[in-house]
Amino acid sequence: MLRLDINCDMGESFGIYELGHDQQLLAEVTSANIACGFHGGDPSVMRKSVQLAMQHGVAIGAHPGFADLTGFGRRQMQLSPDEVYDLITYQIGALQAFVQQEGGTLHHVKPHGALYNMAAASAPLAEAIAGAVAGLDKSLILYGLSGSELIRAGREAGLSVASEIFADRTYQADGTLTPRTHERAMIQDASEAAQQVLHMIRTHTVQAIDGTIVAIEADTVCIHGDGTQAVAFARELRACLLAEGIVLAAI
Amino acid sequence: MLRLDINCDMGESFGIYELGHDQQLLAEVTSANIACGFHGGDPSVMRKSVQLAMQHGVAIGAHPGFADLTGFGRRQMQLSPDEVYDLITYQIGALQAFVQQEGGTLHHVKPHGALYNMAAASAPLAEAIAGAVAGLDKSLILYGLSGSELIRAGREAGLSVASEIFADRTYQADGTLTPRTHERAMIQDASEAAQQVLHMIRTHTVQAIDGTIVAIEADTVCIHGDGTQAVAFARELRACLLAEGIVLAAI
Amino acid sequence: MLRLDINCDMGESFGIYELGHDQQLLAEVTSANIACGFHGGDPSVMRKSVQLAMQHGVAIGAHPGFADLTGFGRRQMQLSPDEVYDLITYQIGALQAFVQQEGGTLHHVKPHGALYNMAAASAPLAEAIAGAVAGLDKSLILYGLSGSELIRAGREAGLSVASEIFADRTYQADGTLTPRTHERAMIQDASEAAQQVLHMIRTHTVQAIDGTIVAIEADTVCIHGDGTQAVAFARELRACLLAEGIVLAAI
Amino acid sequence: MLRLDINCDMGESFGIYELGHDQQLLAEVTSANIACGFHGGDPSVMRKSVQLAMQHGVAIGAHPGFADLTGFGRRQMQLSPDEVYDLITYQIGALQAFVQQEGGTLHHVKPHGALYNMAAASAPLAEAIAGAVAGLDKSLILYGLSGSELIRAGREAGLSVASEIFADRTYQADGTLTPRTHERAMIQDASEAAQQVLHMIRTHTVQAIDGTIVAIEADTVCIHGDGTQAVAFARELRACLLAEGIVLAAI
Repeated sequence: MLRLDINCDMGESFGIYELGHDQQLLAEVTSANIACGFHGGDPSVMRKSVQLAMQHGVAIGAHPGFADLTGFGRRQMQLSPDEVYDLITYQIGALQAFVQQEGGTLHHVKPHGALYNMAAASAPLAEAIAGAVAGLDKSLILYGLSGSELIRAGREAGLSVASEIFADRTYQADGTLTPRTHERAMIQDASEAAQQVLHMIRTHTVQAIDGTIVAIEADTVCIHGDGTQAVAFARELRACLLAEGIVLAAI
Repeated sequence: MLRLDINCDMGESFGIYELGHDQQLLAEVTSANIACGFHGGDPSVMRKSVQLAMQHGVAIGAHPGFADLTGFGRRQMQLSPDEVYDLITYQIGALQAFVQQEGGTLHHVKPHGALYNMAAASAPLAEAIAGAVAGLDKSLILYGLSGSELIRAGREAGLSVASEIFADRTYQADGTLTPRTHERAMIQDASEAAQQVLHMIRTHTVQAIDGTIVAIEADTVCIHGDGTQAVAFARELRACLLAEGIVLAAI
Repeated sequence: MLRLDINCDMGESFGIYELGHDQQLLAEVTSANIACGFHGGDPSVMRKSVQLAMQHGVAIGAHPGFADLTGFGRRQMQLSPDEVYDLITYQIGALQAFVQQEGGTLHHVKPHGALYNMAAASAPLAEAIAGAVAGLDKSLILYGLSGSELIRAGREAGLSVASEIFADRTYQADGTLTPRTHERAMIQDASEAAQQVLHMIRTHTVQAIDGTIVAIEADTVCIHGDGTQAVAFARELRACLLAEGIVLAAI
Repeated sequence: MLRLDINCDMGESFGIYELGHDQQLLAEVTSANIACGFHGGDPSVMRKSVQLAMQHGVAIGAHPGFADLTGFGRRQMQLSPDEVYDLITYQIGALQAFVQQEGGTLHHVKPHGALYNMAAASAPLAEAIAGAVAGLDKSLILYGLSGSELIRAGREAGLSVASEIFADRTYQADGTLTPRTHERAMIQDASEAAQQVLHMIRTHTVQAIDGTIVAIEADTVCIHGDGTQAVAFARELRACLLAEGIVLAAI
């Protein structure tokens, strides 16, 4: 039997500002990455997000990002590996406190946005993140892009890792995601997205936009929580996967 | 044998900005309250502060404050008790992560600045803080002004508490500190300060500026870390207390 | 002929976070108060807001607030008058730059949220705000609650002032707004709100919730931009006022 | 007669945190770049800095940087040209308001830290900065690294520009500064630094560390305000230049 985790980002509201469809998405996913107050989220949002995730029985992850609320953590910042190590530690710790108060368990860590992308390609950043996580709690699972430096660094640091695939994005020949600026970057159709996911978990490969067959590991698939179609897309993807007999469960 | 804890605030530098005389003060104190990134401190400062405190064998506390770096957490902000509960939780968790990575133990929590003063007088804020601490870890000691709502709320929440006195400040008839705007607010002379401290721990009273005798509990005395005389003052106070046979140790 | 300005807050989005219905409201109002980056707004939002307001021929005001994005500037902060003077100056200057680049004219200043409320009651804060505005440009109009310290301080500083009334809020016997916690604080019905506005501009009085007749000046009425009914409410209020022959125009 | 402007950064303190030796340096320089609250500075520091500069008769410039107080604006951030355009506008406007209130004149703009360095090499960023400045006030002088994209973009935007040289830094064959990580990056000796400056303004060339002769324009020389030797260094450099008959004056 094939199994897959479905994860989504959540808790990215801030103060009066609401973002995403957390409550509805939680019905569709098996793990959630909760923002930690730097690129999104604030202490009160974090508590509510932890409570919501626990009510839905969804595995809770920390979702740390750059300290750039204006840019939602999506703009690259040149931090030293030591700075990233400390940045990650701070944010995981903050979320961990809410999880502890609410009686839950912190399950994983997934970096956000530009930090995720930079850590996919940069060994020093990947090692800083893996080191911070391993230094805190060796039982935390590190989520990273399939085939990335982050996955490699996590394994080297003695962590369990979850190789992440994307349902609604196309891939390039080197296994990275096609940049959003490319006309074929996105897969808009949910059933086409589900077919790509099924193909990846069954064959451990994906066909890049230039036709190349790329090896891939698929432990968890990321669902985007923003956009008007997010919930419908998640619902259809989940239904397709269940219909094909895939077991949906956190790692 | 009489015993006393000497505590100081530390880790209040931020980025390129240096504040205080942490390294020298650590030689004089038995516990340290480390800023958690909101009124002062940043992730890298926090790690270094935890390392420094551990090297000196000083008990580590979290020192959470309002999210007001411009005002150094000294300006009152009207937050709801729920907001304070979450604010405190976030900051303690963040510091706890560094302590955990460095192999130390978090020992206590002492609110900073305006939050400390507001929690001394406001039962709902005091209860929010005590509740957040107790919800995280019942073994954490809550530091608060002797006779304050915070001490009362800490006891009610089942926490160990440390009643704090001030060496370099005078008291009013109601047991609160004389406001800094008053001409007799400060005790500049270190030996006079030491005498006041000795009197407080021996008699459990202090003479207010109007002559009233006020009951006081004295578990820990606060040393201020800023000011050019801070280290000399701390050194002399410590020497005086030791000369009088007071055992200086964390609680 | 009676005339009235209708103002609304706008530009309170931040980064990825969208707030309000700026575009639609601009069709209904005659002046707009644009957030300046502290309680809401960011540089890019500010530019777009200035452009939008100019396209609609709406008078542009600066809407400075406390540096509390988490609390949307609605939480009281205890700043000194000097700090408020500088806080206001900074934010007005920032907005002024966008107005200047876009070829517009800055028309007025209206403090936001807790700062507006505190300046209504506190003479020193009101004088700080009026002084900052007058020190920048004596031709700027200061908006404040009718009968407030801010209106008085603005006049004393030699500024033109605009006494503000609220369509959807009830009043107390002392001329202040009934707190939102009171069951009769809000006027939900747009035509009832319009009747209250008409009564105020025709009689220069309002009936407080206890029946007292309170003197009021009514130069501008505030429309709230958030809430799902905001646009419909604004549209109906505007239609009512126009039907009664009120000239709607900026001051 | 040869003339030169000496500029220094100032107003980079923040809240309780003090940085630099502003008062003493102002006696040595002819223009000052005042931080605008993003990488350093706060509204109250900005006002004091404007007042100080005016008391010393020093030309006032805006010194905008990335919104990264933790990294003091020295860490690269990937912003779009439009974001930089708005970022710059906001900060110049904020400073302009203090200058206006104090009765002074804003004289120039010099980007800070990573933004300065990125704009030296990137045409789109340089054009965004030059465009924002020109859009605000064509009489503002744009300071940039001699030979940089920023100088080129400033000229194309119709601005007066000031080509900046560094007294205490060595140059590479392409005219850029030797990175600080290089062992010969810094010139520690003030008289050696003065000789380099003299050579640059007399010959319009500098000898790079590999011996190459590089063409240079020298309108203004930057003095660093931090470091324990900053004031002594500035004093000696100024004395050397005056002794050689160089006229020191703002542009």
